[in-house]
Amino acid sequence: MSRQPALIRELKHRAARIRWMSLKSTAQAGSGHPTSCNSAADLLAALFFHVMRYDPQNPGSSANDRLVLSKGHAAPALYAAWCEAGYLTEEQVYTLRQMNSPIEGHPMPYLPFVDVATGSLGQGLSVGLGIALHQAKVMKNDARTFVLLGDGEMAEGSVWEAFALAAHLKMDNLMAIVDVNRLGQSRETMHGHDLRAYARKVEAFGWEALTCNGHDFEDILTAFQRALKVKGKPACILAKTIKGYGVSAIADLDNWHGKPLKPGPELDKALEEVAADLMKTPPKPSIPKPSATQAPPLASERPASFPPPPYAPDAKVATRQAVGDALLALGGADSRIWVIDGDTQNSTYSQKFADRYPDRFVECFIAEQNMAGIAAGLAARGLIPFGVTFGAFLARAFDQIRMSALSGLPVKFLGTHAGISIGEDGPSQMALEDLAFFRTLPNGAVLYPSDAVSAYGTILALARHNGPGYVRLSRPATPILYPVGEQFPLGEIKIIHAGKAPKLTVISAGVIIHEVLRALKDHPNAHQVQVIDLYCLKPFPTAQVAEAVGATGGRVVVFEEHAPAGGIGEAVATALAGKIREWTHVAVDRVPRSGPPEALLASFGLSASTIRERLTQLLA
Amino acid sequence: MSRQPALIRELKHRAARIRWMSLKSTAQAGSGHPTSCNSAADLLAALFFHVMRYDPQNPGSSANDRLVLSKGHAAPALYAAWCEAGYLTEEQVYTLRQMNSPIEGHPMPYLPFVDVATGSLGQGLSVGLGIALHQAKVMKNDARTFVLLGDGEMAEGSVWEAFALAAHLKMDNLMAIVDVNRLGQSRETMHGHDLRAYARKVEAFGWEALTCNGHDFEDILTAFQRALKVKGKPACILAKTIKGYGVSAIADLDNWHGKPLKPGPELDKALEEVAADLMKTPPKPSIPKPSATQAPPLASERPASFPPPPYAPDAKVATRQAVGDALLALGGADSRIWVIDGDTQNSTYSQKFADRYPDRFVECFIAEQNMAGIAAGLAARGLIPFGVTFGAFLARAFDQIRMSALSGLPVKFLGTHAGISIGEDGPSQMALEDLAFFRTLPNGAVLYPSDAVSAYGTILALARHNGPGYVRLSRPATPILYPVGEQFPLGEIKIIHAGKAPKLTVISAGVIIHEVLRALKDHPNAHQVQVIDLYCLKPFPTAQVAEAVGATGGRVVVFEEHAPAGGIGEAVATALAGKIREWTHVAVDRVPRSGPPEALLASFGLSASTIRERLTQLLA
Repeated sequence: MSRQPALIRELKHRAARIRWMSLKSTAQAGSGHPTSCNSAADLLAALFFHVMRYDPQNPGSSANDRLVLSKGHAAPALYAAWCEAGYLTEEQVYTLRQMNSPIEGHPMPYLPFVDVATGSLGQGLSVGLGIALHQAKVMKNDARTFVLLGDGEMAEGSVWEAFALAAHLKMDNLMAIVDVNRLGQSRETMHGHDLRAYARKVEAFGWEALTCNGHDFEDILTAFQRALKVKGKPACILAKTIKGYGVSAIADLDNWHGKPLKPGPELDKALEEVAADLMKTPPKPSIPKPSATQAPPLASERPASFPPPPYAPDAKVATRQAVGDALLALGGADSRIWVIDGDTQNSTYSQKFADRYPDRFVECFIAEQNMAGIAAGLAARGLIPFGVTFGAFLARAFDQIRMSALSGLPVKFLGTHAGISIGEDGPSQMALEDLAFFRTLPNGAVLYPSDAVSAYGTILALARHNGPGYVRLSRPATPILYPVGEQFPLGEIKIIHAGKAPKLTVISAGVIIHEVLRALKDHPNAHQVQVIDLYCLKPFPTAQVAEAVGATGGRVVVFEEHAPAGGIGEAVATALAGKIREWTHVAVDRVPRSGPPEALLASFGLSASTIRERLTQLLA
Repeated sequence: MSRQPALIRELKHRAARIRWMSLKSTAQAGSGHPTSCNSAADLLAALFFHVMRYDPQNPGSSANDRLVLSKGHAAPALYAAWCEAGYLTEEQVYTLRQMNSPIEGHPMPYLPFVDVATGSLGQGLSVGLGIALHQAKVMKNDARTFVLLGDGEMAEGSVWEAFALAAHLKMDNLMAIVDVNRLGQSRETMHGHDLRAYARKVEAFGWEALTCNGHDFEDILTAFQRALKVKGKPACILAKTIKGYGVSAIADLDNWHGKPLKPGPELDKALEEVAADLMKTPPKPSIPKPSATQAPPLASERPASFPPPPYAPDAKVATRQAVGDALLALGGADSRIWVIDGDTQNSTYSQKFADRYPDRFVECFIAEQNMAGIAAGLAARGLIPFGVTFGAFLARAFDQIRMSALSGLPVKFLGTHAGISIGEDGPSQMALEDLAFFRTLPNGAVLYPSDAVSAYGTILALARHNGPGYVRLSRPATPILYPVGEQFPLGEIKIIHAGKAPKLTVISAGVIIHEVLRALKDHPNAHQVQVIDLYCLKPFPTAQVAEAVGATGGRVVVFEEHAPAGGIGEAVATALAGKIREWTHVAVDRVPRSGPPEALLASFGLSASTIRERLTQLLA
């Protein structure tokens, strides 16, 4: 039986408005993706003006249903929808892609209705899963998360990581809507308009799949109605759409991805076609109010001080072991702390947190991209997530980590088993590039503790940092170097060995600090050496390092178990450029073998004995 | 009806030998994953001694069926199988994890039966797809590729990227075998022993799924028999196994991942149990010979010289445009050249190659991890693959790129649309970290041309480089700077502006070179400036840069559209550490906005006018 014609008439008007503004704003900007907006316009109209429950004047509220535009290149349609809802003015929409306008080419969180930046495809469903977890476990309200995906990005494996875990967690407050417009950027997608091909995959991954014609509101509303009734698992609507729908000159054609219409006749003709669905006197949008209420934002419950690190001065403890203790301390002090691991919790010690705070722990299994995407979603809703796994495997999630950093979110990562000191497992398990890529993150902190006390302290410091960051952790058990009361603020150093008459500054961190100290033990010229424990690489402690190096006449040697590029050496050489007189850099400059840690360190000149030889030469 | 008992008796013996050596070698090494070996031992015995057709004395042959051990941590079982086949001695097997032994903790290509390093999970099926493509399209023989996966890694999205494309390409010479032993590293997997859950996914992705008891040879052989008959699509065998099978003390138990048995009673008891299946007088293995013959390896058909780059001196051409022309020239000269793109061929210009050489082009759709894994598989079989997409999206494949570099494979990547000069599309599309991560690759070349002629030349140079590498390419059309005859060898520089009396060295590359040249145009002190076009960042042209910088008294300024970390600035500052007297570094030090390229460049001090101001200050 037919739905009230009035509603459908109005939704057609809203969709026409979305198409109108998308066509016009991209034409004026001279770039953008109007065809990708037009295929999604009817789905967005249904979401914004019938399905979603939200306060259009408070787009950031956790009481609202949330929307993630995973196909970020359709951003103009998203802006148009928020304009039609009354939050943005049409003037603002037409600042699309202008310098310093928040109306960017792809969605950025300068706008309160954007939780996480999108535009690198295949990430939105993981983000949505994180947001849905916040709704279900923190807000405990009945708010829902909707994720609008493109069919092209369904080829990204990260999407299937999110499908799998969302079903496993029975997240029926999460809904995926796939805009199946058949055309990718360069050609037809793998499945074209074969909705069944997508449905088979989605169902096999444990979701309820519904199909509809994405330009027939009867059909769209029926699909949403059914999808909203699905309980115990998430639902996915697969909508058959036409790229560029509504504009005969570009509809369903190749080579119209990411191309605006030309202002003038080309645009005018298109707007005229779209205008056919506009109402002369449209009603004010009747947007369903959120039934949920906005809970007070979680206050920091962080106490003045944390329990001291539980390590005896004479103990031998791996820095990765401090992960468990520090996360436990943080978790007890602040309910915003969440931990996400990828089936390594018994090696990373995140298990301690998982056992104590199971409701704030997410087991992602072996799916690092989804882990990082979920963390971004959680952080976007005010939580402080820690993603924990082997440092080597965080490389797998670099694109998701990059996007969460562009979003300015406080997503923290702890990478264990870094460097060659893991030994026999071999190079595939050794993080040797992690400092290089984490150091590129805007406003990202990068920490690299050398003992369990500093590991505990730096993880606490990273939790306090208002931004993303990384702590690099090691596998071997090493002696305690610092008293339990020692603090490890960002942007500072520790001089762990101050020679009486220093002529040479040694800079290192992590396990190698211990090799350096052993190298200096009973060394006749130990008094000529000063050793900096560079536990913080970013923000770089420029003044302190420069002063120390200046005191040794600009003579510096760096030892690090990282690739020569992007690690400690390059951070020091660049920060001190112009202040260095004599430079030695020992790093992992070729593919390491699989062998005992000591032998591996020696093979790269990073063992106590080989470091001792090197220092003897330099001091001769 | 029952199979000949003799065969099954023999296979049980082979499996017992594999378990015996796996238990013993890991116990002696004091580390490793014996339980993961034991679950797979029967599957490996069936593969090595009944299913696979290969020459055990020529493990690298392309005439052989190929095996990829995606669950690389079961390496000891792989070594044991090759020992039982007669290629390795038992003594060699027991050098497991000893320094400089090729019998490493995870498989490395020092061994001719290892095509690509595994150990970072979820990559083997993509590699296998690459190898299967080589068999089908280059060898054109009936050799097959078998990929043994663990159930834990089925959570990695990259696996599903490979499943999807292999079905799309109807690769019935590719077979996946999943060792479903229920237990991950830290806990039970998402699906435990639910083979149907995996079968539903595999079938939905277009494969034929078969299930079996992975410890019942009747069942295993039947599954292989049926799988080998599947035509027109790939087949996947899902085998229910027990982790640690055959050793009662560890079988099917938690907390036995990656733990060896203790030499002495614990090991002896286990070996005694396993020995029950050993034959007193085992027959010599009867290994099916490959029906295919090893074709002569593809000779390089590279001519003495390539056609010159087709650019008029007064033309404005984007460096990315040279991708199409250079790949076309390479493709015509050398049949080993393959190109793999991720639905960006119309923006990266790889379309030119795709149109001319469709049999050597692989469209991966939007799945960069699979793209990199396929490239590694192709390179392992002697081809020279170029992976092409936006530089920003190569971050998605960093782990696969890392593993192919550890494998020493000549996998080349071309990343377009690098830096903020892409403009309005915004930060999600801007590669700002690509130099940092590509510079970490062992033996990796990193090139960054500034005009179409040098882009053409550097892509040719990268093809000749015997190792991995990357060329960073830009979106904007820029003037031609070099004569078409100019060569661009690795490890050198071009002085694009030699001041008459240089007092300051400007180092840059790519689009920014043009901004620098415009900044110097009619600048009163242009004669005091020398400009280095650093088109090659790795191998770094240390001597040439040092000489040039020395000539300006160690005064250097670097302009780059990359994050401050890991790019041109840090490469220069480190290579010249101790030789720099005055240092200025201008880079993309915060999140860029979405806007016109000129405005974006200006906002970071990288436009002609802002560079001109900076130079005026420095020369004052």
